[in-house]
Amino acid sequence: MKDIRVGLLGFGTIGTGTVKVFQENARLIEDRLGARLVLAGIADLDITTDRGVTVEAGILTTRADDLLTSPDIDVIVELIGGYEPARTFVLKAIAQGKHVVTANKALLAVHGEEILAAAAAKGVEVMFEAAVGGGIPVISAIKENLCANGFQSVFGILNGTCNYILTRMTNEDAEFSAVLRDAQAKGYAEADPTFDLEGIDTAHKLAILISLCFGTRISLEQIYTEGIRSVSALDIQFAKQFGYKIKLLAIGKFDGEQIEARVHPTMIPHNYPLADVDGVFNAVRLSGDFVGPVMLSGRGAGMEATASAVMGDVMAIARNILSGARGRTPAMAYRPGTIKTLPIKPMTEIISQYFLRFSAMDKPGVMAQISGVLGRYDISIASMIQPERQEEGGAVPIVIMTHEAKEENVRTALDEIDALSVVKEKSLFIRIESEIA
Amino acid sequence: MKDIRVGLLGFGTIGTGTVKVFQENARLIEDRLGARLVLAGIADLDITTDRGVTVEAGILTTRADDLLTSPDIDVIVELIGGYEPARTFVLKAIAQGKHVVTANKALLAVHGEEILAAAAAKGVEVMFEAAVGGGIPVISAIKENLCANGFQSVFGILNGTCNYILTRMTNEDAEFSAVLRDAQAKGYAEADPTFDLEGIDTAHKLAILISLCFGTRISLEQIYTEGIRSVSALDIQFAKQFGYKIKLLAIGKFDGEQIEARVHPTMIPHNYPLADVDGVFNAVRLSGDFVGPVMLSGRGAGMEATASAVMGDVMAIARNILSGARGRTPAMAYRPGTIKTLPIKPMTEIISQYFLRFSAMDKPGVMAQISGVLGRYDISIASMIQPERQEEGGAVPIVIMTHEAKEENVRTALDEIDALSVVKEKSLFIRIESEIA
Repeated sequence: MKDIRVGLLGFGTIGTGTVKVFQENARLIEDRLGARLVLAGIADLDITTDRGVTVEAGILTTRADDLLTSPDIDVIVELIGGYEPARTFVLKAIAQGKHVVTANKALLAVHGEEILAAAAAKGVEVMFEAAVGGGIPVISAIKENLCANGFQSVFGILNGTCNYILTRMTNEDAEFSAVLRDAQAKGYAEADPTFDLEGIDTAHKLAILISLCFGTRISLEQIYTEGIRSVSALDIQFAKQFGYKIKLLAIGKFDGEQIEARVHPTMIPHNYPLADVDGVFNAVRLSGDFVGPVMLSGRGAGMEATASAVMGDVMAIARNILSGARGRTPAMAYRPGTIKTLPIKPMTEIISQYFLRFSAMDKPGVMAQISGVLGRYDISIASMIQPERQEEGGAVPIVIMTHEAKEENVRTALDEIDALSVVKEKSLFIRIESEIA
Repeated sequence: MKDIRVGLLGFGTIGTGTVKVFQENARLIEDRLGARLVLAGIADLDITTDRGVTVEAGILTTRADDLLTSPDIDVIVELIGGYEPARTFVLKAIAQGKHVVTANKALLAVHGEEILAAAAAKGVEVMFEAAVGGGIPVISAIKENLCANGFQSVFGILNGTCNYILTRMTNEDAEFSAVLRDAQAKGYAEADPTFDLEGIDTAHKLAILISLCFGTRISLEQIYTEGIRSVSALDIQFAKQFGYKIKLLAIGKFDGEQIEARVHPTMIPHNYPLADVDGVFNAVRLSGDFVGPVMLSGRGAGMEATASAVMGDVMAIARNILSGARGRTPAMAYRPGTIKTLPIKPMTEIISQYFLRFSAMDKPGVMAQISGVLGRYDISIASMIQPERQEEGGAVPIVIMTHEAKEENVRTALDEIDALSVVKEKSLFIRIESEIA
């Protein structure tokens, strides 16, 4: 029986999970693959900490080069994360003729083109299922069985930290900062959670999904990205009253001409499929011209779920090696020469429904002034809540759900409304998706 | 650019959908595949009916043999359905060295072993994503990216007709027979819906999922199968009161020793992921030892969704041909020599929670008698509803949700309870799944 030899760069959480798959499921993998997957080496700067798994001392090294230059390693698994030295190591592995599996969305979103070009030139594969949605096999679904479809949209809940915080804010009627502190204490949020909370991690993942679904190049800067720091318990409660939940949604759409690419807190009807994806779970909802809507959900992070995706990729590469397949499936779902650079629709041009919250004086005529401005900008009101006054003469929130409107009009109308003397604070809007399909 | 030539057997609903993919997505498929997929022939006994798609007259034939023996067809797509002549045609295609794609779950569940052995001997592939869950790419998920997992369970809502009927019964508080008549009039149920309503179609699909997930042979006779004809509006309403929905669930479990394989109406908590899969939608929830729970949902039937799955398989085979891969992924997820014949747990041995409904005299002491029998068989009561009496001295329903109990005990206890003089009708039970994971 043939051996496929694998080298691991990075012995952190996912690395440890990956080692566990090698150890616990060796027999099952052999039964499915017809070959042994051999963990030939693990490189990490720290090779002394106890990770709760036992590996032969001989396979641990602090020098990545030991693995990158070893002639008998077939596949390098990069689980270091970040841009460098991950990029250098991956390029070196490719130059050495090794296939690469990575979970590194940041690397792919920023250096993907360079890395995939190097791999194509060398005739090796780069696979990255674990980079999006943890254990959910969404990338292989897009590249493999759904590949006869033209895709119209992709929606995703892709960041476990954000979804955990929003879920707790929703269930406990709690404020962002309190939940964040507790999430950090419990290990559900990093000490520096900026990448997660600002939506950057989600945007990295959306960039990959958009490229795969629509066959286009897209850079991180082209994705409109808004995080969840501005989401308040108040707006979550108003959303509930209207029958909505607030999720950090990754949204990609293609109308045949332009791409919409955006990440922002979004209200979705509470009975929509994505609305029930709570806590650290992730989900992706794709819409294809033949398959219609397809949703995949599961654990979006964590040692073991992510290791499942990593090892699925390792086995796919092993199958290609064993069956003699070369260049079987393009890394980005489309063959390199056919990938386009489709135009991105400016945010001012998007059409959406909106949740608007105003803070206005509690006196007659205020609603008439506000709705007058909205009307002049073609923004029609679907429903409204004006809670009872809380203190004599003070400011009260006025909350409005609109029908579909153009974002440019909404922004201009809100500027104009904010200039009214009866309006006390900067008005706020949250986009609504109620036609996820 | 190379051509991959495809012959279609069966020009019905799915056949027509498949022709539409060839016609509408030719360019996109070429961009992804690097080859042209050519629809080389269509065989059907009826080649005159207008299906709403235009094909070159020359490619239509009434003789399947024209395609099966044609030297320039690479892939045969079998969309006839049923056992014969589908089996004969598929075996002939294989004998002629052609790869086969089929959507025929009945054929696979009954003649799968014979067909796959013939394919292995000849070195051709048989793929069947469309046989389970319509457009949902669940078979490729199990065979490809989730393949490093040992699976513990698979739950599925796999029959659109049953799910449509149960959804309408639930939403409209309507009886089975009325909804069925309307579903037939609307085309959501066949004129002879026996295969669907009796759970046989679901059992065919579960047989395939169990084989793929657990690496075992299983025949249709080994799957305990109960349809939905006995589900009443009354029980659906009681389920609602307890916070449950009734679904026709396909259940496969593996505890490391025995397989559970059953299809029956099942109560699931209304806030569980599968509970929201309504109407003609299908869903599969897999649980793997590393990935944890993964759910896939989408359109379980229909011309276009099923055609998506068929063409995904055609493209997978085309990729193997183009890349020179032979025997890349085993048809049943495990290599033939490693497939076991695991023992099936007898239904009397399963452990489940139960919904019990008794029809008893409305007089003091009745509950004591019933709960006395239950207690003697180790069946403990989790909650109970005894609606107010409707007529003096008549029979009333008594409804009980149990904690986990052994099915054998439940059946024996119910027989004993039915023999009580205060019990007026045969008692009824519905199994509950509340730990779907």
